[in-house]
Parts: sequence; structure tokens; C-alpha cells
Amino acid sequence: MNTKAVFYHAGCPVCVTAEQQFVDNLKSPVESVHLGLQKNRLDEALKAGVKSVPALVVDGNVFHINYGAGIEALINS
Amino acid sequence: MNTKAVFYHAGCPVCVTAEQQFVDNLKSPVESVHLGLQKNRLDEALKAGVKSVPALVVDGNVFHINYGAGIEALINS
Repeated sequence: MNTKAVFYHAGCPVCVTAEQQFVDNLKSPVESVHLGLQKNRLDEALKAGVKSVPALVVDGNVFHINYGAGIEALINS
Repeated sequence: MNTKAVFYHAGCPVCVTAEQQFVDNLKSPVESVHLGLQKNRLDEALKAGVKSVPALVVDGNVFHINYGAGIEALINS
């Protein structure tokens, strides 16, 4: 992984397990962003192509994990 | 990650990117299983709870990545 990796989540159980089980196990550093608390990062996540959380963005590639909650739910909450 | 991690895939572009971008970046060793070629591993994947590929199974937790192809497609092919 060349550029910074970002793990977008909303603090749900799937998010927490995903973070513990494999995001914390990545060799490169990953920034964890709780979109429920950091609403100012929603635009950035949308621009990166995030459609649901949890999602890992690495080198411009988006990896949605386990059909999580749609990002619209976070925008409208 | 305590037990062995297994990355189930079918060689599709999403699978290859996911494998390169983050499976290869995990600190612990991960076994990569191409379910299109290793049909004998389908039962094992189903028992682990895999519903679509690519999917990473770690310590009994299944992480489906990016709404991939349903595993049924591999069973019937």
C-alpha cells in the first residue's frame, strides 16, 4: 500500500469486528474515521466512492465490507 | 489474528485488487483459495459462512468484500 489507507465506519458491531480482525492487522498505518461522529468527513468518503460502512479505502480503491449500513443513513441522521 | 486466515476468491478483477491491496498487506499469513479452481473447498467456504467472493475468513468471522459474485454461481458452474 503506497498512499494512506482510511477505514470509514460508524461504530457498529460489524465495523468494530472488521477493525479489530483485519484493519488492525494491516502492515501499513490506517486512519480510522467514525462517520457518525465526524460528519465533516462524509463528503470526503462519498468522493472516495464509499457507499456503505464499514469500508476501507486504499490507493483509491474502495473495499466495502459485509454489506454494511448505507452511507445515506449517516447523511440523514 | 489467532487462527489461520483464508481468502476465498474466484480470480475476478475485484478479487485480485482486494488480494493485492489488503490481503497481501496483512501481518499474519493468509491462505488464498481460488474457489473456481478448487471446487473441493466450496463446502468448507459455505460452512464458514461465505456467501459471496471475495471474502476473508479470520478467527471464524467472515468479511465479504465489495458485494462480489454469489457463491451459488461457483457451485453451479
